[in-house]
Amino acid sequence: MAEGRFITLEGGEGAGKSTQIQRLAERLRERGATVCVTREPGGAPGAEAIRQLLVTGETTRWSPKSEALLHFAARAEHLERTIRPALARGEWVISDRFTDSTIAYQGQGVGLEFINQLKALVVGDTMPALTLILDLPVETGLARARQRHSGEDSAEDRYERMGTEFHERLRQAFLNIAKNEPERCAVIDASGDPAAVATAIWQTVEQRLTPPLSRNCH
Amino acid sequence: MAEGRFITLEGGEGAGKSTQIQRLAERLRERGATVCVTREPGGAPGAEAIRQLLVTGETTRWSPKSEALLHFAARAEHLERTIRPALARGEWVISDRFTDSTIAYQGQGVGLEFINQLKALVVGDTMPALTLILDLPVETGLARARQRHSGEDSAEDRYERMGTEFHERLRQAFLNIAKNEPERCAVIDASGDPAAVATAIWQTVEQRLTPPLSRNCH
Repeated sequence: MAEGRFITLEGGEGAGKSTQIQRLAERLRERGATVCVTREPGGAPGAEAIRQLLVTGETTRWSPKSEALLHFAARAEHLERTIRPALARGEWVISDRFTDSTIAYQGQGVGLEFINQLKALVVGDTMPALTLILDLPVETGLARARQRHSGEDSAEDRYERMGTEFHERLRQAFLNIAKNEPERCAVIDASGDPAAVATAIWQTVEQRLTPPLSRNCH
Repeated sequence: MAEGRFITLEGGEGAGKSTQIQRLAERLRERGATVCVTREPGGAPGAEAIRQLLVTGETTRWSPKSEALLHFAARAEHLERTIRPALARGEWVISDRFTDSTIAYQGQGVGLEFINQLKALVVGDTMPALTLILDLPVETGLARARQRHSGEDSAEDRYERMGTEFHERLRQAFLNIAKNEPERCAVIDASGDPAAVATAIWQTVEQRLTPPLSRNCH
């Protein structure tokens, strides 16, 4: 059985991660890969219940340590019940957010050492083979996110409401992660139209992970 | 201002912790102490929301790591919003369960090293001055708990449903904690009637913590 590959997409609000994940999954499926599309916080029943505590309600609802611990509680569940089993079956796992989001979002409040210790305890060596960091100006992203949230999932906006300064630091945090781990991470300009972003993502995946060539080749 | 004191009550299901906490709080209040009675998981609004994820539902609902992380997420919130502020105001804080419960309940699944690392990250030096471990035979405790849960809080029985072997290991785990930390912990025989247990608890508190002598003495 082919070895599974683990890809994560990261970035601020409104970066277009969900759209790009769908496109990437489709392209991989056309090549014959079995793809598991998932997300954080969430991706397993218990983790989705924890998600509700994190993405709704007052921005000051959680103390920084508690918030980071909730993210890792959800992640432990996600890894155990979804990600590791799918990788063991040889699937391509694409997750909308993973540990880098906790570093970027919660690292501001609780500090990197706290998060890195939780990362070691929970994630271990199940790190992504490739992390695509979708980068775009904060105002562009927030405007897109607000437009989306005038729709159905309007309650899930706790992080969006955290203010422009927070989101500027967030963008910088993601870029720092990419700078510190260039072998794992690739920064993708997400300010263009979805088709152009999808092309850039596909080129990166082809270069770094050599996906199957056709439906018949595995 | 007098320095606050932190007391925890620990033990298996049906040990009579809530009853004994009420009696102890009353006795301390008679002596003029300001007492904050609290509980885990819970004791702060966010922590009570996490409690609902932990004490209800299927016994296999959480992977061991996720469950331990949820307990510490609730505890971080409890410490930050309830315990540390009350101690800083000079109050006596009495908590129904604390970190020892996570060691005894979740240590069985996830191992002590994992929990001890979380304890260091979250609890730090806010450890109880005194931990009263209410000990009684497993069957006696479970029978009491079942009787109680035929009443109103009948949904909060996830841990009770974990089987006799689990509860036997739990009892032993609490006794081991007491043996390893005799300066902090005292084992109280909880199989007698509530008045006798209350007397034993009060004698221990008097010996170890020298509570105020009367309403007027502080």
